[in-house]
Amino acid sequence: MGIVEDTLAALGITLPEPPAAAANYLPVRLAGDFAFVAGQIPRIDGEMVASGPVPSSQSPESAKAAAKVCAINALAALKGALGDLDRITGIVRVGVFVASDANFDGQAGIANGASDLLVEVFGDRGRHARAAVGSVALPLGATVEVELIAQFK
Amino acid sequence: MGIVEDTLAALGITLPEPPAAAANYLPVRLAGDFAFVAGQIPRIDGEMVASGPVPSSQSPESAKAAAKVCAINALAALKGALGDLDRITGIVRVGVFVASDANFDGQAGIANGASDLLVEVFGDRGRHARAAVGSVALPLGATVEVELIAQFK
Amino acid sequence: MGIVEDTLAALGITLPEPPAAAANYLPVRLAGDFAFVAGQIPRIDGEMVASGPVPSSQSPESAKAAAKVCAINALAALKGALGDLDRITGIVRVGVFVASDANFDGQAGIANGASDLLVEVFGDRGRHARAAVGSVALPLGATVEVELIAQFK
Repeated sequence: MGIVEDTLAALGITLPEPPAAAANYLPVRLAGDFAFVAGQIPRIDGEMVASGPVPSSQSPESAKAAAKVCAINALAALKGALGDLDRITGIVRVGVFVASDANFDGQAGIANGASDLLVEVFGDRGRHARAAVGSVALPLGATVEVELIAQFK
Repeated sequence: MGIVEDTLAALGITLPEPPAAAANYLPVRLAGDFAFVAGQIPRIDGEMVASGPVPSSQSPESAKAAAKVCAINALAALKGALGDLDRITGIVRVGVFVASDANFDGQAGIANGASDLLVEVFGDRGRHARAAVGSVALPLGATVEVELIAQFK
Repeated sequence: MGIVEDTLAALGITLPEPPAAAANYLPVRLAGDFAFVAGQIPRIDGEMVASGPVPSSQSPESAKAAAKVCAINALAALKGALGDLDRITGIVRVGVFVASDANFDGQAGIANGASDLLVEVFGDRGRHARAAVGSVALPLGATVEVELIAQFK
């Protein structure tokens, strides 16, 4: 195992199998030294762990935990594409869409579930630009969707 | 005509004129070997072909067809910027916003209208990372908006 | 002062202090010759100047002015990361999320508040690809959120 996977193990995180492409798109698209990771939803073993908007269907706490699951799924996708997560030199941008009721304003706190994990795993090179926004509805009823751009060597 | 335009012709697709910039932004912005295409809405000859959210105003089927129109408009924009679509070496990332009622969860299926067209036209190099999300409302009442990043030579 | 800051002064715009990162993400992430600016909300001296959706809580005019504030905050963030705004060679992509009621369709006009400022400041190299979309709710109740990618030397 590499350094990043050792860190994941120390955090008690086991990466799932890399996702298969669901249609004519890819879990990860490499272009130059950028790896574009497709929007990830909070599924574990194929099962959605958080559905519906915040806060009417999910608490902010469970939505934040779901954002972490999305980030873990993004890492699994990157491992599938790159073979070794130690090839990642940094996380560049993270986009977080949070299924939100009209008066919910805590999207940033939920996005921290993804951001914190990425910095725990990659340290300072995991720090990234981020856009966190509310969405009226997400694919398959997901509470959160996370996409990202990494840089690799 | 080049290879890509031959393919489009074989698919029965005629590209519209490249769009003009609507304001202080561009249909396509080139940066390095990336071409960033602005968000495209489903207009044909200036007329919106699908308005309002899914499913209350549009069926998933018509929204998927509208996503294909957006992708065709993106190709027209790229032709305007690059002169020749054969300069495109790949589609990198596609963002699809679907005007959605609060309980609609089929954004991925609608986004396939854009993804499938891009792979029909470009083959494997048309396969891309993708984020598909719901939006409460889109410009001019569009049912779908598609932006993308291509790579070119 | 450099050329860009002279232009800002001539426009009567004083840049605020660069924002601090709010959590494990950065106001600006540099990668290659791209600068990714995190989503900016319309705060002046820490106070939100436009909250809630258009048009029920904010008029299109005040939302457009708020988009300009977001763009100014993005420039402050870029100055913090690059030291000198004259290092910016162009604005590549701008993403504008507008808190919207379900039947509002004027997101493009609001996004012009950001686009127009960027072109006033940078001239033709400030012209960019853009996606403007509606959002059901944004962080801290912001009426608009603007993220962007610049190129720098």
